[in-house]
Amino acid sequence: MSGARMYKEKFRPNWKLWLEYKNEYVFGPGAFAILKSIQKAGTITEGAKALGMSYRYAWGVVRGIEEKLGERLLDTRKGGAIGGGGAVVTVLGIKLMELYSKVQNDFERVVQESR
Amino acid sequence: MSGARMYKEKFRPNWKLWLEYKNEYVFGPGAFAILKSIQKAGTITEGAKALGMSYRYAWGVVRGIEEKLGERLLDTRKGGAIGGGGAVVTVLGIKLMELYSKVQNDFERVVQESR
Repeated sequence: MSGARMYKEKFRPNWKLWLEYKNEYVFGPGAFAILKSIQKAGTITEGAKALGMSYRYAWGVVRGIEEKLGERLLDTRKGGAIGGGGAVVTVLGIKLMELYSKVQNDFERVVQESR
Repeated sequence: MSGARMYKEKFRPNWKLWLEYKNEYVFGPGAFAILKSIQKAGTITEGAKALGMSYRYAWGVVRGIEEKLGERLLDTRKGGAIGGGGAVVTVLGIKLMELYSKVQNDFERVVQESR
């Protein structure tokens, strides 16, 4: 085994990725996981629950980003007598998830290729 | 301008990279900058100073990593009457710097290319 290869096997690159808006942190791994989970579950309550988070926490993360951007990431509708309220990720929310996910995948590929 | 391009221009990916050893954080941007600066300056004192750090802080970062790895990142020699002590980055230190720098450059390239 070459020396270079030995070092690569012992030392594993890891990273935290986020998106900045006007040079400020807006969208990181937590927001990505929350939107993804809400998208899958269809409601904030169920999406948060699937991640072991409270509704309040998940909604707070989303609201914080929406306030920084002045745009919505979720379209929410009030629940009826039976179904309860639903939440749909907006076009902006989907674009942020796609950008985050693309860069994250590119980083993973680059690290795999260099091993 | 396409919608996708507009999103990419508004939202800039940023990241923190580090190297893990046995699933533990060992080498991040601070350690990289410190070793690089000591390598250039030739002494811990001058290397730390160039980064606006104290000798004590820079040496503490290096020592902390050396303790986790059980190996030296710097070869230090005591100063004589005139020259003062010097510090040379070890082969392991250089390999860590190279691996860190390679992945960091790959990440920068990937983000540039996707813009």
